[in-house]
Amino acid sequence: MKSELRLGIAGLGTVGAKVAQLIERKAELLAERVGRSIRITAISARDRSRGRGFDADGMAWFDDPVELAEKGEIDAFVELIGGADGVARQAVEAALSRGIPVVTANKALLAHHGVALARLAAENDTEILFEAAVAGGIPAIKTMREALSANEVSRVYGILNGTCNYILTRMEKEGISFDACLKDAQALGYAEADPTFDIGGFDAAHKLAILTSLAFGTEISLESIFIEGISKITIADIVAAAELGYRIKLLAVALNTDSGIEQRVHPAMIPARSSLAQVDGVTNAVAIDSDLLGSILLAGPGAGGAATASAVLSDIMDVAGGFVPPTLGLPPSRLQPYHRARMRAHEGGYYIRLAVFDRVGAFASIASRMAENGISLESIVQRKADRRAGEGTAPVILVTHDTTEAAIRAALEGLSRDGHLSGEPQMIRIEDLD
Amino acid sequence: MKSELRLGIAGLGTVGAKVAQLIERKAELLAERVGRSIRITAISARDRSRGRGFDADGMAWFDDPVELAEKGEIDAFVELIGGADGVARQAVEAALSRGIPVVTANKALLAHHGVALARLAAENDTEILFEAAVAGGIPAIKTMREALSANEVSRVYGILNGTCNYILTRMEKEGISFDACLKDAQALGYAEADPTFDIGGFDAAHKLAILTSLAFGTEISLESIFIEGISKITIADIVAAAELGYRIKLLAVALNTDSGIEQRVHPAMIPARSSLAQVDGVTNAVAIDSDLLGSILLAGPGAGGAATASAVLSDIMDVAGGFVPPTLGLPPSRLQPYHRARMRAHEGGYYIRLAVFDRVGAFASIASRMAENGISLESIVQRKADRRAGEGTAPVILVTHDTTEAAIRAALEGLSRDGHLSGEPQMIRIEDLD
Repeated sequence: MKSELRLGIAGLGTVGAKVAQLIERKAELLAERVGRSIRITAISARDRSRGRGFDADGMAWFDDPVELAEKGEIDAFVELIGGADGVARQAVEAALSRGIPVVTANKALLAHHGVALARLAAENDTEILFEAAVAGGIPAIKTMREALSANEVSRVYGILNGTCNYILTRMEKEGISFDACLKDAQALGYAEADPTFDIGGFDAAHKLAILTSLAFGTEISLESIFIEGISKITIADIVAAAELGYRIKLLAVALNTDSGIEQRVHPAMIPARSSLAQVDGVTNAVAIDSDLLGSILLAGPGAGGAATASAVLSDIMDVAGGFVPPTLGLPPSRLQPYHRARMRAHEGGYYIRLAVFDRVGAFASIASRMAENGISLESIVQRKADRRAGEGTAPVILVTHDTTEAAIRAALEGLSRDGHLSGEPQMIRIEDLD
Repeated sequence: MKSELRLGIAGLGTVGAKVAQLIERKAELLAERVGRSIRITAISARDRSRGRGFDADGMAWFDDPVELAEKGEIDAFVELIGGADGVARQAVEAALSRGIPVVTANKALLAHHGVALARLAAENDTEILFEAAVAGGIPAIKTMREALSANEVSRVYGILNGTCNYILTRMEKEGISFDACLKDAQALGYAEADPTFDIGGFDAAHKLAILTSLAFGTEISLESIFIEGISKITIADIVAAAELGYRIKLLAVALNTDSGIEQRVHPAMIPARSSLAQVDGVTNAVAIDSDLLGSILLAGPGAGGAATASAVLSDIMDVAGGFVPPTLGLPPSRLQPYHRARMRAHEGGYYIRLAVFDRVGAFASIASRMAENGISLESIVQRKADRRAGEGTAPVILVTHDTTEAAIRAALEGLSRDGHLSGEPQMIRIEDLD
């Protein structure tokens, strides 16, 4: 059996403590599987005195994680502090500069600085592993970086945020409003006190930025992602989607198009019979289209201490085994610059829900504004007007054939100028997944 | 860059030729990703003269694959001949005996001789890689052996045979009989001229035997699998399943129970809303339940030249990278003996379709036979009798609450003795997947 692998862990919150507990509890199993024992030799966290469910005797304590990374007697550094900058970044840089491999669950760090860190790793003949940073316990990174290593990927997409999926699932199944679901999610610990990062689509965007780089061999470009959150989705949209044979999910999509790469995170209507539509609650899913495999789908827990710890341990086992592919799938020098596709040119069907004043000429205006922008309609449904509040307002639901977002926006602006809309129109992309 | 990896490939059928073509076509990409170039230095196939879409100049030709394995100037041996015994086995044993790692897509070889081969590999300090042997392009082996390396698995199950899934999907969607679907599958190349291996459940059983060993750290036990094929499934069953909210799939299941391991391959009714129920056509799916991850699901192409070649290449890349986990996830000496669970004791709901003579006393007999075997019924549906052929025969569909197969069989034997059944009863397990 090879010599033991000495680990330094910085950050002992839910995930970090779970990793340490599992290394203690499953020591024998892990050693048998990788042919080498794994031992934590150094730790760092904010509060030294707190009990964390594992025996820290014999582990060197560092108040400063950067010092641990710089001076700890370790063969691998596990960063579970979080945050794109600050000590997490400094500690990771310190470890890589010593040629020590880094295991991290830090999506923000990678989405913002992944290419620079991959370069630093390569310069020091080491790598970064980050299975836990994307889609929790789903082996998305391993699949992309190893299982698909002979493939060229054309599209990667999925449901990457458990909070949003939990809220949308409950809205659909129980008919509860977005605000009420969000409150429940916060009470259950599925959403933060400030939920913007999740429900605004930013968390999913960070994960997508990393997947995109692995998928297409390009530099990471978080700032190029079109991001729209779920807070404007109403029960009316969810009901209309169901009637049309769709379900609404917060979808993250990256496509390799002729004009460049398209990355977007937004609510989408997907066919109710598709595999992705069955992904409910806090579950995540990643689908990958590639030249040799066609389509594959991975689904599983997107978050949670045990699932995230499982992914961190899988990376630690890979380090113990001795081989890790290049951080971003290719040597950093071979990553292509990111070229952004013309987003407005994306063709697809759209769902549009309008609140229209119930008066003569409204329907004619809708029809002509759509026609003048070259939009053909697959279906139009007008509900009965609600006349309780003075002049009646009728909800009108349109489903378009393939068109562009630019055309839709122009048509809606025209309609608004015509004075027929009593409120903001809702527009949701339709993704006709297989 | 490290020295090149020299490959010997034995077997140049659809998959073998595709692997060789891809190594030629994607040479640069593969070398960049693994930091090492990959070159085929030796080949063996039945017919030397046939063109196969790649340039064989500079590759040593062997008429005998065993000789290639014994004497080829190679760093890894790729076995794509097939068959549990004969030259495939001899060649693999020859390569392992030289300490050369083996990449294979041969499920029969592994299901029958996997443990002995794993021992031979370990004795010679090498390993066998077999991603392509189970579920084609789905990274089931990599996920089980690497991504879940810190997990203890409690259940692995899935749809492991594309031919059966294609037939069942078409029967359901188009209302075509089993025989007609089978003929189409044969015409399309989805089924062999002798389809027994696929539709009898044996192909799925081979794959399950391998997954079970990886899941539970036990020796492989193909002979312990309860196997039932799909040839008795009728359109009537599929229609009844849909009415009850289920779909019928050929399911492969391995469970770790208190009394031992249960392995079975049989048609099952699974909830129509489950993720597995959406897996249509030739697609495969593998679901794994484990302590840390809860449940994960992988779905993708279960067969086909490109998908299988992709899995073979993923293994070749792992060999090039230099680390491979133990063949069966643990050193062979640590594999536990296989203990078989008492199959008849498996509790679950059952669907039963009876053809009952439409006469006084039939229903009373059903009710009392079920009651005396402790079976409670969730639903009973009796259709109108068909009186065209003399004495009428009425189809009766029963859905039971949780019971055992032994109880069901006893009740059906009682009913048969009572003389009320006009034909063989149909019995399909209900699997209430999440």
